[in-house]
Amino acid sequence: MPQTNDQPLIRTEKDLLGAQAVPATALYGIQTQRAHQNFNITGVPISHFPDLIKALAMVKYAAARANHQHGLLSDEKVNAITEACEDLIRGEHHEQFIVDLIQGGAGTSTNMNANEVIANIGLAKMGFEYGQYSHLHPNNDVNQSQSTNDVYPTAARLAIIFAAQPLKEAVANLEHSLAAKGQEFSKILKMGRTQMQDAVPMTLGQEFNAFASDLGGETARIDHSCRQLCEVNLGGTAIGTGINAPKGYAHLAISELADISGLRVRLAQDLLAASSDMGAFLTFSGTLKRLAIKLSKLSNDLRLLSSGPRTGLGEINLPAMQPGSSIMPGKVNPVIPEAMNQTAFQIMGTDMTVTMAAEAGQLQLNAMEPLIVYNLLNNARMLEKSIRMLDELCIQGITANEARCAQHLENSIGIVTALVPHIGYDNASRIAGHALLSGLGVAELVRQEKLLSDEELAAILSPDTMINNV
Amino acid sequence: MPQTNDQPLIRTEKDLLGAQAVPATALYGIQTQRAHQNFNITGVPISHFPDLIKALAMVKYAAARANHQHGLLSDEKVNAITEACEDLIRGEHHEQFIVDLIQGGAGTSTNMNANEVIANIGLAKMGFEYGQYSHLHPNNDVNQSQSTNDVYPTAARLAIIFAAQPLKEAVANLEHSLAAKGQEFSKILKMGRTQMQDAVPMTLGQEFNAFASDLGGETARIDHSCRQLCEVNLGGTAIGTGINAPKGYAHLAISELADISGLRVRLAQDLLAASSDMGAFLTFSGTLKRLAIKLSKLSNDLRLLSSGPRTGLGEINLPAMQPGSSIMPGKVNPVIPEAMNQTAFQIMGTDMTVTMAAEAGQLQLNAMEPLIVYNLLNNARMLEKSIRMLDELCIQGITANEARCAQHLENSIGIVTALVPHIGYDNASRIAGHALLSGLGVAELVRQEKLLSDEELAAILSPDTMINNV
Amino acid sequence: MPQTNDQPLIRTEKDLLGAQAVPATALYGIQTQRAHQNFNITGVPISHFPDLIKALAMVKYAAARANHQHGLLSDEKVNAITEACEDLIRGEHHEQFIVDLIQGGAGTSTNMNANEVIANIGLAKMGFEYGQYSHLHPNNDVNQSQSTNDVYPTAARLAIIFAAQPLKEAVANLEHSLAAKGQEFSKILKMGRTQMQDAVPMTLGQEFNAFASDLGGETARIDHSCRQLCEVNLGGTAIGTGINAPKGYAHLAISELADISGLRVRLAQDLLAASSDMGAFLTFSGTLKRLAIKLSKLSNDLRLLSSGPRTGLGEINLPAMQPGSSIMPGKVNPVIPEAMNQTAFQIMGTDMTVTMAAEAGQLQLNAMEPLIVYNLLNNARMLEKSIRMLDELCIQGITANEARCAQHLENSIGIVTALVPHIGYDNASRIAGHALLSGLGVAELVRQEKLLSDEELAAILSPDTMINNV
Amino acid sequence: MPQTNDQPLIRTEKDLLGAQAVPATALYGIQTQRAHQNFNITGVPISHFPDLIKALAMVKYAAARANHQHGLLSDEKVNAITEACEDLIRGEHHEQFIVDLIQGGAGTSTNMNANEVIANIGLAKMGFEYGQYSHLHPNNDVNQSQSTNDVYPTAARLAIIFAAQPLKEAVANLEHSLAAKGQEFSKILKMGRTQMQDAVPMTLGQEFNAFASDLGGETARIDHSCRQLCEVNLGGTAIGTGINAPKGYAHLAISELADISGLRVRLAQDLLAASSDMGAFLTFSGTLKRLAIKLSKLSNDLRLLSSGPRTGLGEINLPAMQPGSSIMPGKVNPVIPEAMNQTAFQIMGTDMTVTMAAEAGQLQLNAMEPLIVYNLLNNARMLEKSIRMLDELCIQGITANEARCAQHLENSIGIVTALVPHIGYDNASRIAGHALLSGLGVAELVRQEKLLSDEELAAILSPDTMINNV
Repeated sequence: MPQTNDQPLIRTEKDLLGAQAVPATALYGIQTQRAHQNFNITGVPISHFPDLIKALAMVKYAAARANHQHGLLSDEKVNAITEACEDLIRGEHHEQFIVDLIQGGAGTSTNMNANEVIANIGLAKMGFEYGQYSHLHPNNDVNQSQSTNDVYPTAARLAIIFAAQPLKEAVANLEHSLAAKGQEFSKILKMGRTQMQDAVPMTLGQEFNAFASDLGGETARIDHSCRQLCEVNLGGTAIGTGINAPKGYAHLAISELADISGLRVRLAQDLLAASSDMGAFLTFSGTLKRLAIKLSKLSNDLRLLSSGPRTGLGEINLPAMQPGSSIMPGKVNPVIPEAMNQTAFQIMGTDMTVTMAAEAGQLQLNAMEPLIVYNLLNNARMLEKSIRMLDELCIQGITANEARCAQHLENSIGIVTALVPHIGYDNASRIAGHALLSGLGVAELVRQEKLLSDEELAAILSPDTMINNV
Repeated sequence: MPQTNDQPLIRTEKDLLGAQAVPATALYGIQTQRAHQNFNITGVPISHFPDLIKALAMVKYAAARANHQHGLLSDEKVNAITEACEDLIRGEHHEQFIVDLIQGGAGTSTNMNANEVIANIGLAKMGFEYGQYSHLHPNNDVNQSQSTNDVYPTAARLAIIFAAQPLKEAVANLEHSLAAKGQEFSKILKMGRTQMQDAVPMTLGQEFNAFASDLGGETARIDHSCRQLCEVNLGGTAIGTGINAPKGYAHLAISELADISGLRVRLAQDLLAASSDMGAFLTFSGTLKRLAIKLSKLSNDLRLLSSGPRTGLGEINLPAMQPGSSIMPGKVNPVIPEAMNQTAFQIMGTDMTVTMAAEAGQLQLNAMEPLIVYNLLNNARMLEKSIRMLDELCIQGITANEARCAQHLENSIGIVTALVPHIGYDNASRIAGHALLSGLGVAELVRQEKLLSDEELAAILSPDTMINNV
Repeated sequence: MPQTNDQPLIRTEKDLLGAQAVPATALYGIQTQRAHQNFNITGVPISHFPDLIKALAMVKYAAARANHQHGLLSDEKVNAITEACEDLIRGEHHEQFIVDLIQGGAGTSTNMNANEVIANIGLAKMGFEYGQYSHLHPNNDVNQSQSTNDVYPTAARLAIIFAAQPLKEAVANLEHSLAAKGQEFSKILKMGRTQMQDAVPMTLGQEFNAFASDLGGETARIDHSCRQLCEVNLGGTAIGTGINAPKGYAHLAISELADISGLRVRLAQDLLAASSDMGAFLTFSGTLKRLAIKLSKLSNDLRLLSSGPRTGLGEINLPAMQPGSSIMPGKVNPVIPEAMNQTAFQIMGTDMTVTMAAEAGQLQLNAMEPLIVYNLLNNARMLEKSIRMLDELCIQGITANEARCAQHLENSIGIVTALVPHIGYDNASRIAGHALLSGLGVAELVRQEKLLSDEELAAILSPDTMINNV
Repeated sequence: MPQTNDQPLIRTEKDLLGAQAVPATALYGIQTQRAHQNFNITGVPISHFPDLIKALAMVKYAAARANHQHGLLSDEKVNAITEACEDLIRGEHHEQFIVDLIQGGAGTSTNMNANEVIANIGLAKMGFEYGQYSHLHPNNDVNQSQSTNDVYPTAARLAIIFAAQPLKEAVANLEHSLAAKGQEFSKILKMGRTQMQDAVPMTLGQEFNAFASDLGGETARIDHSCRQLCEVNLGGTAIGTGINAPKGYAHLAISELADISGLRVRLAQDLLAASSDMGAFLTFSGTLKRLAIKLSKLSNDLRLLSSGPRTGLGEINLPAMQPGSSIMPGKVNPVIPEAMNQTAFQIMGTDMTVTMAAEAGQLQLNAMEPLIVYNLLNNARMLEKSIRMLDELCIQGITANEARCAQHLENSIGIVTALVPHIGYDNASRIAGHALLSGLGVAELVRQEKLLSDEELAAILSPDTMINNV
């Protein structure tokens, strides 16, 4: 940095609305500062979302290289810009992104924050003072051939794809842990339940395998959503007509962006439609929601199955993570699934926020896009952390109450179902009713009535027949 | 009706857009018919909502009487109109309201359907043929001093108030039935549960009393919402400025409307604001949603408490309403609470529909009001029917499994809580852990460790101390 | 039908809960009747959803043929059942499906309604009286090797796929109509708008093409969702273990179902997971919601662009479908897009209902599935009808206000954007500000300041450069 | 603080699950630390919500004083606890509340964080080391006669009431600013619009007054919601039976809480119901949502009315807060209302999160309460900040485009409405149609057709008649 101690504390910058003082050491400039003053809604600045800064820097990098190839940027400028972008991609200077992520202006302030920070890093690299924009201009150079309306949607898509990767890994790990429990519990017979009522026999292993299977396709769905997000409108500039970018620029920029990001980004077919299209965000939000619903159902089931210790179902034990109660000694609560449920509800509710924001687009743009980006980045992160929590602090430590499972199976009337093909639905119904009232066992009653021989009964009620018949 | 057999099958009517044939015997006219052709979305016509037709007729009745007092309607015309309205209020001719309730135009087609039907009923009463509107005109006479934009919101408010009355009664009945069960079960001790884990003792009566208490304020909330709905914009006409109505008309019309409806309707202070204000609808929708959430939680609890018969909590028995399974003989499912849950989810989801429709108002009107009215009338009815179902087919027939409740209490570790003030949280935690691992009882362990005398222990663990201590 | 006039009006049937009288001519039986008495929530019976009845009949048909191949059904019985199913598939006897679609019991009542109706149609074909179930039993024969828990989810998936086909066609037609308008308006220059503010030039054709493009992938998404719905759990019976079905039955039944339905149905890999998995329904609901959001945005834009006639944007004219106002003569409102908006809001809200219902599954089943099916079938139909309405009654009749579009373009300051690459962002900003305050044109000011020659200016501001630059 | 530099860096604490090291200078203890390790979902710790810490401290203060009066706490202990609470109420030590607000366990970790911090502050005041809990115990002393299940819901209610006060002030200020604009613009005539179509005349002042009126009752509604929140379950302890608290304690504690908080807190009638009742939270969330919907509609209208500058409605000018575009020079966007919209959508969506969390309560508790508290506190704050932003950075600086308003009025056909009482609906419709096609004015055509004299026409079309007629 070229600044020294005897420099002034502020510098003055100017824009359409007049002049303002900016901290002399700030890499951001006047437009960032105005936005920072205007928007103070969540208190969460852009810097809280490193994936977004990284993605913005990649877009700026790609644009600069494309502009250079079109002869619109000098060697010196393109080097300054791309090196600045590399700094940001490496995670440097993120604290300079001070604007609230939720902002009016369809992301203009986020884009200008990037433009100003990159210009000033670049100026420093070129040996100039911060703010000497005649040598490297936030708009004319860093934002050249670009508009917020193509840069922001493109960067947002990339950022979401980046955020989706650790989420995918977390889901795959959870699925693996559930399947491992399915294997571990494969010999433990228990009663299945439908509508909270005793149904027919199964194994605890089948139950955990089903949990794993239920998540089976979700990583592929995340990938599918990410592929949709790879379709971008970079080069469309203000409304998709490509005004102010040289012909051919879009394809060049996309190709550079693919290189720097390592992603298969591609240009949308109709850039006008793409400028306001929130479809891929909606699909991603729907993917998170679907996953959240499945995790919530899983958590509900874990809390049901581990209910007790004495007056609940008590078929499994969740690992004790913390004392459960400030008043009830010895109480250990299913706090991890409860936290997972809450994350799931947050995601389900904010999918509705994303829905409303997407619906509110008007004509050639959707001004509510920052809200969509805020929720998708937040939700992907919350979901990832919660899934890791569920996996590592709960699922992996679950143990089975074999005795309880066996006891439930023995007492159950539900095994009467297996007799239907042999004694008919009406006979079986009668036996079931009798068993319920008398407290006697189903097999005992069948024997009393001599409806089946002991051999037949044994064969029909063999677990293998009952639990694996497809 | 003046028609005879040799009359033509159609008559021709005319409007701004041209002429169309209308069935000769139809009480509705050309504008209704156009709307019927335009909108075919739900397949549910206005006639499905008699409360709305009744309310529209009351508004038309009140407007006609106010116009008459202003000298704007002849004696003959006012009589024809008000008698026609009385017919509708009595439930006649509702089949003539053929337009889909969900419609564009902010309710204009519903208003015109009413105007045309009333005009034609009135014409018949005056001895004219249907469609001879020069003698009694749907717009100039029936709609005189009115606009859809004040008539429709006013009628919608009244209709919802009407629909709320049987709902209130259903809630009150359900609350009563729950409290009766609370009384019936007041001596049955059981374990309370928090977070699905054994907590501390209570009675089953307390549990049902709490269900009743949870609904305790809901009828008052419905009343509170209805009072908000009593504030109407009748007389504001097109946008709230009262254009085309004589000065003083609004107050007269409101006074007549209060008379005919028996409701304390009052004029909104700012009629411009009132024309597009959906606030009272939102509050009513929120009231239904709050009620639905409570009913859903109640239904979830009933399904939990009655889970079993052998492998669940099994503390209560729901009345068997139908065989539970096409394959599992003897299975009886909690079908009534399950249906209640589904109604609740429908209401919670469509509250979001109401939210979005309310948000979509623009400038001096909200064109999405028909959707709001559709959902509120539908939801009030669904909720009423479901609550009656829950009350009559489930709650009233619930019985207790005393033995199971007692067994749960005896086995439980949760009673250790009562010892904390006497032996401290840390001792109590240790005892609890020991009990859980050993299978021994809490009291037994306390005696073994001589932490308390038998008398002390008995006093501390007496149910009265534990369940009623406030 | 074997009944004659002197037969009794009722017959008596019996089930687990006792005996009840059923109308003698009813094809349904006692379990249907009980359910009809229990559930009266929406007032909308299963018969309102012919796709569901058709799908149920196909499942029963496939099951019967598979059972027959396993030697579990005689030739006579299988013929009676499959012929009865063919009757239902052809649309006969649908009025016998009287149960409310929203019901407790996870669809058991719907399944039993089908079982009873098929049994009685079959009995009549075999020459027996209705209700003589010893010859053809609703449970033992028609429901053989089946459970509601595999039949209902399977039939529901098929029904939704059937409902999706006309929807897809409607979307494709709408897309076509929009693209045709894009072509028709391809030469009409206008100003684009971002954030409701004048942006840069484009054509009205580009605007309509973008509307078409925005819907471009939606039919493929419907297909994608339908492919997910093709994965079914038939043969899993009660909880997915296949209890009571012969080994091998599942694959046979699926193969028969593929034949009769013409759909590529396939067996889920993990039938336990599949029994409670609502994932494919969620994805379908999300697909409808995404489509609804796009249609709502389109409708909002149409209402904005046609606002006026004198005090709005007024760039396009929607066809007048009905007089717009009961008080304001000559007013023609955008009633069709308004109705489309309302349908869209209904779908967005009920997606939340579907979400909550899916989350509420417990252990081996989701008892809330009927609510999901109700909303998806309703929503697909509402959406289809509304899209056809929008297409045929609005889009196809839209005309352009060329003069207005041209006037907007001429007055606009937005064209200053095109000058940025030539005179720089700061100069351009200054010119723009000057133009706004003075009322002078941008080109005029550039000429005054001699920033560019007339030739340069003409080239830069040529429409072709500005609107098609990618 | 008694620690000095040569003290160890850690201390060891113990709970039900074993021992753990805690930073020696930490005021929190082992249970807080476990929770901090378990939950890392939002990254937002309790300390981000000072209102909640303040409320928790008030509850602990009140409980300690009530316990002291019951003879359960020594003078020394009660002083230590209440002084520690006063520190927290003053805002000290908040950084010690490190647990994520979203957590499993129904708030137990938040309660224990408070118990531990208060114990350690108290220990220091008593001259002991941190962690010497035998002298002042987090559970036995600080949490005496309490459970998370009464402390947390009580503190949460108070915290929300605290958060509601600045929100109320912000709403009142906004309402005042809107009304001031109503006054300022009271003489500016313009056309009203319904369904985006020209309707009838009004003043711009009426429009802003209506905006003010629309918010008119909202502060009273916030108060109404806060009164519901004043009903608390303190003293109910674990499940509402008051186990482990002395008889009479509840009323004493409530009375102390009223004193320290200055709020009219009162004891719920049925403490069992109150323990799991989320009703007051739901109502508060509904109140925020209703307010958000109104603010979103207001913001939409502001963006519509200020659309332009050349190709929109352009009747008002919003103050320019920042350059609007990175590519389009001179563009100034309605960024403040856009940000307000986004806040509104966030609140509408998370109301659904609150809904789902409330519905998920089970039996004697709702374990999802932390999620409810998180959203309500966050939403109240976001809403307050956004309303201040809207008020101060937008509404107060709005100016009118008088010329544009006048021009719209002159061109409009909508004034034809005023003629209906004089020339009839059909004549007026014809005139309107003619005017639209010919481009001629309504008055001109009436004069041509000699339907009214010039004097009549002037009287009818006088603004006063048209805009203020009720």
